[in-house]
Amino acid sequence: MQDTQQRFKKRGVDYDVSEVMFGLPREYYQSEAIYQEELEKIFYQRWILACREEEVPEPGDYLTVPVGEESIIVVRDEQGQIHAHFNVCRHRGTRICMEEKGQFASGFIQCPYHAWRYKLDGHLKAAPLMKDAPGFQKTDNPLFSAHVGLWGGFVFINLAEEPAPFEDEMGALFGKFEDWKLPELRIAHQLSYTLSCNWKLILQNYQECYHCPGVHPLLSRWTPFRSAVHDCFDGAVIGGYMEMSEPGGSMTMDGKAAAPPVCNVSGDDLQRVHYYSVFPSLLLSPHPDFVLYHRIRSVAVGQIRNDCFFLLHPDVIGEPKHMERFQSAIEFWDMTNRQDWRVCEQMQLGLTSRRFERGRYSPQEDMLYALDKEVLKALGHVLPE
Amino acid sequence: MQDTQQRFKKRGVDYDVSEVMFGLPREYYQSEAIYQEELEKIFYQRWILACREEEVPEPGDYLTVPVGEESIIVVRDEQGQIHAHFNVCRHRGTRICMEEKGQFASGFIQCPYHAWRYKLDGHLKAAPLMKDAPGFQKTDNPLFSAHVGLWGGFVFINLAEEPAPFEDEMGALFGKFEDWKLPELRIAHQLSYTLSCNWKLILQNYQECYHCPGVHPLLSRWTPFRSAVHDCFDGAVIGGYMEMSEPGGSMTMDGKAAAPPVCNVSGDDLQRVHYYSVFPSLLLSPHPDFVLYHRIRSVAVGQIRNDCFFLLHPDVIGEPKHMERFQSAIEFWDMTNRQDWRVCEQMQLGLTSRRFERGRYSPQEDMLYALDKEVLKALGHVLPE
Amino acid sequence: MQDTQQRFKKRGVDYDVSEVMFGLPREYYQSEAIYQEELEKIFYQRWILACREEEVPEPGDYLTVPVGEESIIVVRDEQGQIHAHFNVCRHRGTRICMEEKGQFASGFIQCPYHAWRYKLDGHLKAAPLMKDAPGFQKTDNPLFSAHVGLWGGFVFINLAEEPAPFEDEMGALFGKFEDWKLPELRIAHQLSYTLSCNWKLILQNYQECYHCPGVHPLLSRWTPFRSAVHDCFDGAVIGGYMEMSEPGGSMTMDGKAAAPPVCNVSGDDLQRVHYYSVFPSLLLSPHPDFVLYHRIRSVAVGQIRNDCFFLLHPDVIGEPKHMERFQSAIEFWDMTNRQDWRVCEQMQLGLTSRRFERGRYSPQEDMLYALDKEVLKALGHVLPE
Repeated sequence: MQDTQQRFKKRGVDYDVSEVMFGLPREYYQSEAIYQEELEKIFYQRWILACREEEVPEPGDYLTVPVGEESIIVVRDEQGQIHAHFNVCRHRGTRICMEEKGQFASGFIQCPYHAWRYKLDGHLKAAPLMKDAPGFQKTDNPLFSAHVGLWGGFVFINLAEEPAPFEDEMGALFGKFEDWKLPELRIAHQLSYTLSCNWKLILQNYQECYHCPGVHPLLSRWTPFRSAVHDCFDGAVIGGYMEMSEPGGSMTMDGKAAAPPVCNVSGDDLQRVHYYSVFPSLLLSPHPDFVLYHRIRSVAVGQIRNDCFFLLHPDVIGEPKHMERFQSAIEFWDMTNRQDWRVCEQMQLGLTSRRFERGRYSPQEDMLYALDKEVLKALGHVLPE
Repeated sequence: MQDTQQRFKKRGVDYDVSEVMFGLPREYYQSEAIYQEELEKIFYQRWILACREEEVPEPGDYLTVPVGEESIIVVRDEQGQIHAHFNVCRHRGTRICMEEKGQFASGFIQCPYHAWRYKLDGHLKAAPLMKDAPGFQKTDNPLFSAHVGLWGGFVFINLAEEPAPFEDEMGALFGKFEDWKLPELRIAHQLSYTLSCNWKLILQNYQECYHCPGVHPLLSRWTPFRSAVHDCFDGAVIGGYMEMSEPGGSMTMDGKAAAPPVCNVSGDDLQRVHYYSVFPSLLLSPHPDFVLYHRIRSVAVGQIRNDCFFLLHPDVIGEPKHMERFQSAIEFWDMTNRQDWRVCEQMQLGLTSRRFERGRYSPQEDMLYALDKEVLKALGHVLPE
Repeated sequence: MQDTQQRFKKRGVDYDVSEVMFGLPREYYQSEAIYQEELEKIFYQRWILACREEEVPEPGDYLTVPVGEESIIVVRDEQGQIHAHFNVCRHRGTRICMEEKGQFASGFIQCPYHAWRYKLDGHLKAAPLMKDAPGFQKTDNPLFSAHVGLWGGFVFINLAEEPAPFEDEMGALFGKFEDWKLPELRIAHQLSYTLSCNWKLILQNYQECYHCPGVHPLLSRWTPFRSAVHDCFDGAVIGGYMEMSEPGGSMTMDGKAAAPPVCNVSGDDLQRVHYYSVFPSLLLSPHPDFVLYHRIRSVAVGQIRNDCFFLLHPDVIGEPKHMERFQSAIEFWDMTNRQDWRVCEQMQLGLTSRRFERGRYSPQEDMLYALDKEVLKALGHVLPE
């Protein structure tokens, strides 16, 4: 417990909340110009969650992953290595893959227009008739590639030509949640949502429980909102945990566990729900008995696609009795998600008012202030105090 | 009649129409930039029709009223006074009310996100946990309020911080239509329309009957288009009346009255239909036997929501026999409205032509020239002659 | 054959393809600003296909033809002459005609709003009550007119005030396809499509058969893609022909002719399919047994309406047996069109990628380079090499 005392800080008790904290100006949620800047400096520069490794299990399996206005092919090659390529032919710019997922059965990525053919690692293998084009070299024309980073069974991609090292940006995750053995877990269920709000509102919503008593009566019973403590306060990864009021509980309709503890989870972690936001596209929430994560995709300045996944150990997934009971967790989070989406969407609407300028955060919302700072740092913006 | 002779002037007969009158350039109907300027300088500066007083009869009753891109809560407090508040929480900008109408049963306006709670007059009553926020004062954080003006049972609101006095802008209405006892009348019926045209086109359409012979054959039979005379020629209120060809008539499918004369209406008014536009959101039309008004809400540069209401005395509304006969007025105006909307929408489409510049008004359209001047004055624009 | 040798050149064989040819930058397919410039400098300046003469057969018959954001009335007058007028009343700018086609039964073009009435040649005949407007002259207020050019039974219009002479721009067509007697042919069938891509992509698609082996397996059997030769290499009209592998064939589901040879078509032309693009709105394709043409209408920067027509001699149209067999040509081209639209739409999608810059053309795509040059010349743009 000594250790925990040092790592974690409880807001309003252990650290200084005397700062006067204002939110971002309303333009940050509505301006098309700022959104385009966010695409360039955040979504096309930072490490973005693409998928789980299990989603491209075999050589030739691929997903097409939208990142802002780009489309990326995530594919596993013959050696088992995962690649990410811009979904655009080097010949004249045709989008190569139209399906959300599939299999390159031929072992090649072939453009449907003029049949240019690429190897799974992106090298141009064949460009019909281009031998007559003066000076044309296949080696000059591989698919544009994005960078790939792996952690805990998650596949992250980075569209920048020279990205910050994965280890630097995601370092705070390394060594975390070892007891859950994340790489061994598999997707047990997926919920998908479209939200009419800016992507930052959902991250903010996730990092404060000030709204819980009014918005989530049931969640507030299982985890009192004042129980939140944090150990990551700045950078790409921020978060902490909330304490459950009952031992052996979890976030389900009846407050009891929905499955056996995950792998080696034990001790304090049996009574905690962790909430980490991995800027800007992953919300990760290990529970004692499952792992929940949200994959946030920004579609437009005021629109999000959010896919919410539940991870379990394959042994649990294979047991019908367990999966029947597990519905209680799915039902709980679907209900709770929708409660959140509603207030996020109302905030987006309210921000249309020209009379409103910047919100004043409560000490309970200090992590939002940290999120805002990460946004401003990425954009290189300095706000007047 | 002496008095009437002095007050009213008949176009083309009693006053000078020798001026060469051109319409507004086509950009005034299509440019997003000019529309944004109109929002700022007209819709957020002038007195806008919100509703009738009867629509918020009891303490706690509210409507949410869209004004341009703003949303305003119109609510009656415990003392019976009507308030108008921006529908945006002072905490982080959440839109508070989503329903078109409702009742604050608790006696408070409460934000659904973090439960900030305001009194009906807008004062912040409770802001949970903000006592820990250094320097935060509830008295600094009431709802932003809009101004309220009342006339004839109508509720007007003004979003400006320091609006022109209601009496100054609406002065031309005061003392008018006393015989109708407008505050005593109640809504008997509502027709709602969405139009694909700029808001000014519907005001212009309302202020000339040059189009009536071709567009409204029936209306032209009951009120010949040359019968129009006017007494308000400039400012926010302009209009006059048309004379019915038959005594005891009204604007109905058979040209006969649809109800008994309204309250004290008598004499010349039994044979007149009045048409006043109250810039920029009310078209008011007292008939001998009912009062019709249009509430114009601009939704976008080329889109309007128009609600058309029929007012009658409660005694008439309470009598089924009267209401059955009154269908004839509703049917007449629904037909006539649709005839107008069609040509307004065709004019909006035609104005896409780059070849067209400015229209030349006929003397019959002198009131449109007055309307245009009011627009230009509000915008501070001067057009080249 | 001597003559043909001189006129026609076979790509990659008879002429120089040693130039390094790059495509247009991606902005030319997506930028709203460049699209607006194209409207002004191409669609409102060049000769645009409106319709066939047969579509307005009698005096008073009209079509409304969209050109960019303009609407044009194409009408035949009492003397049989075809006129083109902007579909906008000179009074206040109302769009006069809303239907796609119709008949001015009164012999006049009358505005639905205030009943201004124009002769079929555009002169203002009656403007009610405008005699009171000081200085107003009907002769100053005819409909704005567009220019009309006729060739081969096609009606072209030009919206510029002082267009380049029809003969200059379309000169390359004159004297061509005499054996088909184009003016005598009539529309036998129409296929209509909406495509989500820029208008230039469909012209480019039409001028190369590099994509044929992969996209059009059947077309490639009837006309091997290397058989293409061209005689028009620059200017508004570019194109040539492809040779059929079987004599007596045509572009049908079974590769055999769908109808008797058109009028006087004989000799080499019995084995050729001609493909000409008439910049920017007509793709013309005389076959031995019918004439196919596409009328391209740009609706937005990324949207096209394409109407595809089949022309036959009236004697063939009148013969049910012929028309039954002719389904084979319709079916072939509907299938082939859809194959093309799919790759055009995928190219439009791919061009969203900021990573992609300019495509490298193969020698097979030299005509696209010629098309691009025509676009750049019209816009007055010079690209960095």
